Amino acid sequence: MSPFTKRRAESVSALGEARLIASIRRWLGAASPRAPFGIGDDCAVLPTGRGRSLLTVDPVIYGEHFDAAVPPRAVGAKLFKRNLSDIAAMGGRPRAAVVALALDPNVRLEWLEGFYRGLAAVSRKYLVPIVGGDVARHDGGIVATMTLVGEAAAGRVVTRTGARTGDGIFITGQLGGSLASGHHWKFSPRLAEGAWLAGRPEVRAMLDVSDGLAKDIRALTPPGAEPALDAAALPRRRGCDLRAALSDGEDYELLFAVTGGSDAAFLRAWRRNFPRTRLSCIGHFVRRGARPPGALNLEGHRGYEHL
Amino acid sequence: MSPFTKRRAESVSALGEARLIASIRRWLGAASPRAPFGIGDDCAVLPTGRGRSLLTVDPVIYGEHFDAAVPPRAVGAKLFKRNLSDIAAMGGRPRAAVVALALDPNVRLEWLEGFYRGLAAVSRKYLVPIVGGDVARHDGGIVATMTLVGEAAAGRVVTRTGARTGDGIFITGQLGGSLASGHHWKFSPRLAEGAWLAGRPEVRAMLDVSDGLAKDIRALTPPGAEPALDAAALPRRRGCDLRAALSDGEDYELLFAVTGGSDAAFLRAWRRNFPRTRLSCIGHFVRRGARPPGALNLEGHRGYEHL
Repeated sequence: MSPFTKRRAESVSALGEARLIASIRRWLGAASPRAPFGIGDDCAVLPTGRGRSLLTVDPVIYGEHFDAAVPPRAVGAKLFKRNLSDIAAMGGRPRAAVVALALDPNVRLEWLEGFYRGLAAVSRKYLVPIVGGDVARHDGGIVATMTLVGEAAAGRVVTRTGARTGDGIFITGQLGGSLASGHHWKFSPRLAEGAWLAGRPEVRAMLDVSDGLAKDIRALTPPGAEPALDAAALPRRRGCDLRAALSDGEDYELLFAVTGGSDAAFLRAWRRNFPRTRLSCIGHFVRRGARPPGALNLEGHRGYEHL
Repeated sequence: MSPFTKRRAESVSALGEARLIASIRRWLGAASPRAPFGIGDDCAVLPTGRGRSLLTVDPVIYGEHFDAAVPPRAVGAKLFKRNLSDIAAMGGRPRAAVVALALDPNVRLEWLEGFYRGLAAVSRKYLVPIVGGDVARHDGGIVATMTLVGEAAAGRVVTRTGARTGDGIFITGQLGGSLASGHHWKFSPRLAEGAWLAGRPEVRAMLDVSDGLAKDIRALTPPGAEPALDAAALPRRRGCDLRAALSDGEDYELLFAVTGGSDAAFLRAWRRNFPRTRLSCIGHFVRRGARPPGALNLEGHRGYEHL
């Protein structure tokens, strides 16, 4: 469905601001607590948290992250889930979300309802309330920005830094072909997995792969080291070649480093806890310049560039 | 300065993503803590807060909240300050901000530098770090969205509800003419005033006026009541008529209700603490239908409609 309409009666602008906000609250339903704990005051009030807070922000933009081919519910769900994936990558638990929407007055009400109902479905599934937001006019475009607040789930936050030479490199799920397969909006954020990983001391560093493995692994690589990846071990989505697996982007899988030598025991523990989530050991970090023959050379591969 | 350029060498797209992010960190300087407490990981980590958290989000959009006539530093400052104003309106203390930027590849680097330096200046002034963000491509537009996390400053959060019939209605500063005077980007958010007001038990409800007094006062009005405003008491900006004062919008002043009968003592305490911030008692809440002759009839006045 195209988000835009030429019939004013079907558009957002026909409703007016007060009725639009009332509609949004109805579409969100139980996902939206009452003010001041939800929409309706100058700020939303969150109960006192138990530990350190996590904060992340990501948008979806018409023409960039979605188009008329993506169902509106999926657009809302995607916005929520890509932010949840960032919380998962720190081993965190999501607490509350706010959504700012910049939109053309000719956006279809039907599209907007789908978008918010998509947000509400994810909110219910992961028990994360939508506590506030903003709607503003933006002629010619749709930019929806979510900010998600979380907290450390395991008492520990896993950052991107901390891997060492000799550590094993692991990734969940499969890589490549996210756009063609619809994975970019159908994926499940790895929240349970991320929280469990944060509780394992042998997990030294972690991130979620969103711009392609070849690009994102740089942030995990310790100084003076480089990754030695085994091409045959890369979990490729059906129909994807090596290049696609390394650089397509929008995988939303967890990439992490595990203390060298503990791979076998770690994999057994994983399978007991997550028998249905694929986990692959795809290589290890070596001293820079010491990449063994046969290991992948990532230099020719690029990831997604945002600008 | 127009935010856009036709010379690719002067544009954001010429820089590439990695160098753009490095530039943003340089422009933000001390306003941007190191990861994981700032930009550079999947989420930003905030230290454990002392009380309930506040969360608010507001954008600035090219063509809507600013144009080529507003200096880029002022655009960044405005984005920050309109969010600070929402924290002030709850009596809160700001803790940390994230900024998501959706922008056309033809945006001038010089414009973008000004924008971030404007954010950095406000960050330093109010001691609020910018801990994270996102930059994404958005052909044809600029949408900058800030989410601000705060906490209750006085142990108490002042919401929009709680006013009663008989309460006095107060407003800080002056109203009207925000666009023509440049107040919409020059204003100072009333953070110190808001925090002080939250500590006064006679302050029952509060909000910041951003869409015009005539519209925003509805949210402060208790059920079964209406405001009885004295037109002569309204603090109008020079050159503004009554209509402008009631409906121009972007005033970013605090509007609040004070327990009836305590006006004089309250005003004395205010003047001791904020001798340089104008405060006006502009009327009081009466039973619906009991508006005295001579009090303003707000029915013909509208505020700013966002869509």
